[in-house]
Amino acid sequence: MQDHVTPRRVVILGGGFAGLFAARALRHSPVAVTVVDRRAHHLFQPLLYQCASGILSEGQIAQPLRAVLRRHHNVSCVLAEATDVDVKARMVHAQGPEGGVLRLPYDDLIVAVGLRQSYFGHDDFAAHAPGMKTLDDALGIRRRIYRAFEMAETAADDRERQQWLTFALVGGGPTGVELAGQIREIAGHTLDREFQKIDPARARVLLFEGSDAVLGAFGPRLARRAARTLQSLGVELHLGTLVTDIDAHGLTVQDHDGTTTRFEARTVLWTAGVDAPPIAAALARATGATQDRAGRIAVEPDLTIPGHPEIHVTGDVMSLNRLPGLAEVAMQSGAYAGRVVRHAVEGRAKKPNPFKYWDLGSAAYISRGRAVVKVGPLHLSGTIGWLAWLFVHLAFLTGFRSRLGAVLSWSVAFATSSRRERAFTMSDVDAPAGPGFGQKTPPPPP
Amino acid sequence: MQDHVTPRRVVILGGGFAGLFAARALRHSPVAVTVVDRRAHHLFQPLLYQCASGILSEGQIAQPLRAVLRRHHNVSCVLAEATDVDVKARMVHAQGPEGGVLRLPYDDLIVAVGLRQSYFGHDDFAAHAPGMKTLDDALGIRRRIYRAFEMAETAADDRERQQWLTFALVGGGPTGVELAGQIREIAGHTLDREFQKIDPARARVLLFEGSDAVLGAFGPRLARRAARTLQSLGVELHLGTLVTDIDAHGLTVQDHDGTTTRFEARTVLWTAGVDAPPIAAALARATGATQDRAGRIAVEPDLTIPGHPEIHVTGDVMSLNRLPGLAEVAMQSGAYAGRVVRHAVEGRAKKPNPFKYWDLGSAAYISRGRAVVKVGPLHLSGTIGWLAWLFVHLAFLTGFRSRLGAVLSWSVAFATSSRRERAFTMSDVDAPAGPGFGQKTPPPPP
Repeated sequence: MQDHVTPRRVVILGGGFAGLFAARALRHSPVAVTVVDRRAHHLFQPLLYQCASGILSEGQIAQPLRAVLRRHHNVSCVLAEATDVDVKARMVHAQGPEGGVLRLPYDDLIVAVGLRQSYFGHDDFAAHAPGMKTLDDALGIRRRIYRAFEMAETAADDRERQQWLTFALVGGGPTGVELAGQIREIAGHTLDREFQKIDPARARVLLFEGSDAVLGAFGPRLARRAARTLQSLGVELHLGTLVTDIDAHGLTVQDHDGTTTRFEARTVLWTAGVDAPPIAAALARATGATQDRAGRIAVEPDLTIPGHPEIHVTGDVMSLNRLPGLAEVAMQSGAYAGRVVRHAVEGRAKKPNPFKYWDLGSAAYISRGRAVVKVGPLHLSGTIGWLAWLFVHLAFLTGFRSRLGAVLSWSVAFATSSRRERAFTMSDVDAPAGPGFGQKTPPPPP
Repeated sequence: MQDHVTPRRVVILGGGFAGLFAARALRHSPVAVTVVDRRAHHLFQPLLYQCASGILSEGQIAQPLRAVLRRHHNVSCVLAEATDVDVKARMVHAQGPEGGVLRLPYDDLIVAVGLRQSYFGHDDFAAHAPGMKTLDDALGIRRRIYRAFEMAETAADDRERQQWLTFALVGGGPTGVELAGQIREIAGHTLDREFQKIDPARARVLLFEGSDAVLGAFGPRLARRAARTLQSLGVELHLGTLVTDIDAHGLTVQDHDGTTTRFEARTVLWTAGVDAPPIAAALARATGATQDRAGRIAVEPDLTIPGHPEIHVTGDVMSLNRLPGLAEVAMQSGAYAGRVVRHAVEGRAKKPNPFKYWDLGSAAYISRGRAVVKVGPLHLSGTIGWLAWLFVHLAFLTGFRSRLGAVLSWSVAFATSSRRERAFTMSDVDAPAGPGFGQKTPPPPP
């Protein structure tokens, strides 16, 4: 099976948790691994909201893929976005940042491209309500949060001031809940005594969620606890509401019985939906694979596409047994796919055991000293939950230096409420979080 | 002189070193100080190149002005850009980030707006050769440096590869020299063993300078030392050259005898010139003050504009006795102007002594363990110079946490050559460093 001149070529699309764990599983195999990502860094996405809120810097949650994989001598990294897969020729087509076209031949393909923010068909919402999936998004949200208080301070009238002091979050999953908690903490503690005309502590944070619970995936008990904690922080919960319109000055929501209400808010952040990037549809077309409503690709129990044992789909973009889009699922499925390839290279005849997800639990941070954590039958909240959260995140942060840095930043943030990474740049405030390589701004007027 | 109902109003334009030191000098005076800046942070500009090169994060060199001035109970901050001064009505006109117009009345005006990057009339160079004056600039340069190696790795041919591996720096002052040293260090050490197709260590760094020496302001002896150190690092010096053209693929230079040479380089960085922002010309028109070639405003020995004892000009935008554009000059002149106002408020009849600059020396970092420092008759270079550089920068970094953070980051960078803040975002790669509030990118195509 293995050609002794050219090693077996494994192309991994995506350098997130799934892609990274696949590459690691292949570390000692005689294969040539190529990791293709349209960003040069591996992002520790579970802490992205802390970059947005000014606790952590970009470098604390994003390491260059090349640096992470430096000691993996059989891995090379390519900064490019996969655009299509020629399954007959076993060739990935990709595009570099400046439009250069790349052709990457593979013997095994591991797809780990993740999901991106989706607006359920309302793409016009994106300009007013950025999502939070990338480092760009986090820096944009940081800018919007801190700038809003500045704008409120110099607002022309009370109405405008109140609009700037109102933050609306759409989506009651972990990211929405975490951001809501962060904004209330910034308003109530971080900005204490910094303003003259406004009282930042009076900033309103509205959280809109379509279902009847925040953190529904954590089960009813923790969901209720989370809701109580949020309310005690001053977050206004609007459950069972659908957002029907968003503009620069606010949003309109509809509740269960069809009543629509308008809320004025100059900062609207969107964490409500995800869908698959275009390469997933291209792959489905090329292989005949089916996609679910969000574009996830349905896989066999061994994570391959039916009829294509050489194509493995892992992480968020994989659809299997309704597994949730968690970092843990991505890590385990990526590692599994890597092992399957390794075993094939080693010539093991035995069919791999089906992929089995070990639920190590899930965690969501709400505010200083409070988190909810679900580990099997164990439901933790409050301070115990927070300690569990701390342990889990330190265990999974890539690299010792990141851990040390995060512990230092957290210690200061928790002890003093101050946040080191509050600096924001003014350019590009309304740049939407595009799905592809960043749009270029026009050249300056002559 | 002082109205007991409304305190005397002092408006400070700019929150850099000069503006900050002016505000500090007025801390205990019964005045109402307003600091106007178009950015919400105070920037420690002498370390901006370390943010660009991935050693320090934004938050380590930029603190929110409000946080820095939080304990100054008579100071308020306004995020706006001064557009004009009505000297008769004693009123500053300013524009907020979203275009809102502000009118700020003053009894005393302290102008500390600094200088911006200038292209000597070649504004078309800006799109291809960004300057380095702001946090935006530094993040853009970080992106360009690290992305260039990625582009080289996937380049279509050798010529393109070599273009990506060639970095041209225009300007042999401290910023140009520091960036040149940083890029050679990144190429030779930081990126070690991360690439397969290219050898980053072979990246060329070309430094173009119009005069016959780099770091000319440090005197011929240190200039020669700096040149030798740069050459030993592999920086190619092109002294006595004028850049006549820059495009996306390289630049054309002309030497003393008129010979023009073309160099291919995909990354060109510009640190060659500065000029005053538009508000300086507006102020000169309104007051009849004279401006020098770079737009600096000529002041009396007490730093006021002739005929306008209520308008003080400080820092880089002040023209007096050919004082250099150094952080030290900005700090001392800002503090002086603040003291002059304080003495007037206190009713001291005595005319203030003329401003006198105490030359505490200047320093430029070249590479790990090597810097040049000039303190009066003392000329330090090599390791001793580097230790002096370290001491000076720690002494002036604002705030204990920044110092601690910088020491930690420096320790790791110096010991291991790794740089924590290498993550860059892909958007906005070719956004020029605009002089005003950032341009907005167009909305996404429908």
